[in-house]
Amino acid sequence: MATIRLWMDEDAAGDARVAAVFADIRAVRKQEFVNNFWRALANQPALLERTWAGVKEVMLAPGELDPLVKELIYIAVSTANACSYCVHSHTAAARAKGMTDGQHAELMAVVGMASETNAIANGLQIPVDEAFLVG
Amino acid sequence: MATIRLWMDEDAAGDARVAAVFADIRAVRKQEFVNNFWRALANQPALLERTWAGVKEVMLAPGELDPLVKELIYIAVSTANACSYCVHSHTAAARAKGMTDGQHAELMAVVGMASETNAIANGLQIPVDEAFLVG
Amino acid sequence: MATIRLWMDEDAAGDARVAAVFADIRAVRKQEFVNNFWRALANQPALLERTWAGVKEVMLAPGELDPLVKELIYIAVSTANACSYCVHSHTAAARAKGMTDGQHAELMAVVGMASETNAIANGLQIPVDEAFLVG
Amino acid sequence: MATIRLWMDEDAAGDARVAAVFADIRAVRKQEFVNNFWRALANQPALLERTWAGVKEVMLAPGELDPLVKELIYIAVSTANACSYCVHSHTAAARAKGMTDGQHAELMAVVGMASETNAIANGLQIPVDEAFLVG
Amino acid sequence: MATIRLWMDEDAAGDARVAAVFADIRAVRKQEFVNNFWRALANQPALLERTWAGVKEVMLAPGELDPLVKELIYIAVSTANACSYCVHSHTAAARAKGMTDGQHAELMAVVGMASETNAIANGLQIPVDEAFLVG
Amino acid sequence: MATIRLWMDEDAAGDARVAAVFADIRAVRKQEFVNNFWRALANQPALLERTWAGVKEVMLAPGELDPLVKELIYIAVSTANACSYCVHSHTAAARAKGMTDGQHAELMAVVGMASETNAIANGLQIPVDEAFLVG
Repeated sequence: MATIRLWMDEDAAGDARVAAVFADIRAVRKQEFVNNFWRALANQPALLERTWAGVKEVMLAPGELDPLVKELIYIAVSTANACSYCVHSHTAAARAKGMTDGQHAELMAVVGMASETNAIANGLQIPVDEAFLVG
Repeated sequence: MATIRLWMDEDAAGDARVAAVFADIRAVRKQEFVNNFWRALANQPALLERTWAGVKEVMLAPGELDPLVKELIYIAVSTANACSYCVHSHTAAARAKGMTDGQHAELMAVVGMASETNAIANGLQIPVDEAFLVG
Repeated sequence: MATIRLWMDEDAAGDARVAAVFADIRAVRKQEFVNNFWRALANQPALLERTWAGVKEVMLAPGELDPLVKELIYIAVSTANACSYCVHSHTAAARAKGMTDGQHAELMAVVGMASETNAIANGLQIPVDEAFLVG
Repeated sequence: MATIRLWMDEDAAGDARVAAVFADIRAVRKQEFVNNFWRALANQPALLERTWAGVKEVMLAPGELDPLVKELIYIAVSTANACSYCVHSHTAAARAKGMTDGQHAELMAVVGMASETNAIANGLQIPVDEAFLVG
Repeated sequence: MATIRLWMDEDAAGDARVAAVFADIRAVRKQEFVNNFWRALANQPALLERTWAGVKEVMLAPGELDPLVKELIYIAVSTANACSYCVHSHTAAARAKGMTDGQHAELMAVVGMASETNAIANGLQIPVDEAFLVG
Repeated sequence: MATIRLWMDEDAAGDARVAAVFADIRAVRKQEFVNNFWRALANQPALLERTWAGVKEVMLAPGELDPLVKELIYIAVSTANACSYCVHSHTAAARAKGMTDGQHAELMAVVGMASETNAIANGLQIPVDEAFLVG
């Protein structure tokens, strides 16, 4: 159903840039599986390279946020943006990083509550309190 | 700029249900400050009571997610929904719960990256991998 | 703060198409006030004419939905789309058509509840029940 | 395709809280059918209870808005939020409450028109008229 | 899966207004194929007529933007609004108007980049520079 | 109103990474003016560097889409995402690249029309025609 072709491994073998990214994805993730997102981006090697480099930097490099917390945030944004593919892939990723059913339940509760209060605040056009302004 | 009146403390004093919620907000948060969101909802006592009860249950009750993590998720959803009020209020709340500048920076990086890949996945209508399906 | 110029009445007087739409807005609404939305669209006479004709047909022509109900729906959509201008203008329009404070409160409660369950349904990617499919 | 398990009736029978909500849904709606939304939320009993209580209060309790009007507003929000599940379930609910084809047609016309003018107002960043400000 | 019936040609033949629009779609596009969007709108003749007239005026009339550029903009908006149907139909339309794989790749890169910076600007609530204000 | 501090030039002078990006922005754009987006990102040097590098690659590198067309697409996405800052900054950028009033008008017409039909297609859950599926 994609609007572009998904690249199989034999297709990737014929393009050095795509092959290199696929190999790096496998090395970094320590698994053979390369999901459809990257197989779709393979049509666009420059975007493939930049996006994978970005994901490695943002999601995988050591930092102040726990990797699982980053996945929860990713699911939250993907839900708000109605991205079915991303909700599926990052829920799977969160589970692989140890997300419990209880954490998933609380995530949904927070996302739901935020969506409700976002709507009410926008629907009433509530002005920002001075106490919340920086500087 | 709100589309409804914001209730001052003297207004709240005249309505037992509103006064009770305002008092509970102050007791739970251990501060005098009641922000505009609640002052706007005061026009709608039933919604005020239900929303505050929901926030207490979702955001403040003990659970499996750290309270700060919940605030980060709240900011992420509010950003995706373009709720200016909510971004301001929950960024302030996250800081009050200890969010560092580094965590804030990483939050923005994850929210930005998720938004970018959400758009690409939706723009290419990438089909969900079977490996991501449950059951 | 608009990204284009807002047309004053003296500007409109110099363009027959714009002048005609402004005159029709005043005649249909039975008031002198022409709000900024139309003063911005005046930069684009074809869009101005087509949009005003559409609004008259959709919002003002007799039909099966009450004019006030249409305004409530308009506010709901504008809230979900985070359109500050539209929330303000259609809340004013709804009040002019008789929206009570109680109706406004219930509208916000429904919009909030819908936003919450939309998020949860999208976040869990719940499949549509067969019973809901047409045909 | 859900990211969590859907609870069958035999699963629900094993959890008192879930069983109680399912029983109440059937009693309130006077039908055996329990749709997938609730079967998904069953994984999260606290969220299930709070959401069903909220839906009963917001959608089913007597108020100033007609129950069918509330369903139309729900469809409008679900459409703007691109929630496929919710559009299907609430369109079915609206029909069950008597929505005519003509009303459905007008609903779509209003939702479409609102979406168009929302985009134009946001795209031109039209400032809110003073006449629309409260207080 | 639509929430309404899709009109086949034999259905359209029984309604003069629908038949006229279907005939005009075929004449303007110089092809027999009438896609599902119009077959769904056929349930609502007034909306069908107004929407087709709007599409002809906006997308097909001569103007200052190239027809292919208009399709790229259409895909961009449809992606941001998570409209699966529209992304599919307008990607096909763009290809029919000559969109190359390279242009499609760049479109996705721009849409992704815009979505990322939109999120960051909203997440940090960055104030508009005076230099960007008109007038 | 930002939720973080905007860096002035003297602040930037004290951080080699930020200073380098600001200098590159000025060199590439051939102007002294550095807009607030970058002054906000300066709090997050890694995000600042990656975002500026991405913008240069996506928006400024030679490719198959005209630079002005990219700006129109950027405005379209920013409008759909209700990003006030981005609409302002990219409308200014488009004008600097030669956008005419007529092109701006047509852009708004296409964005409005797309938003309307997106809503209708999502509201009716119209199934994708087989003719639009790839492969």
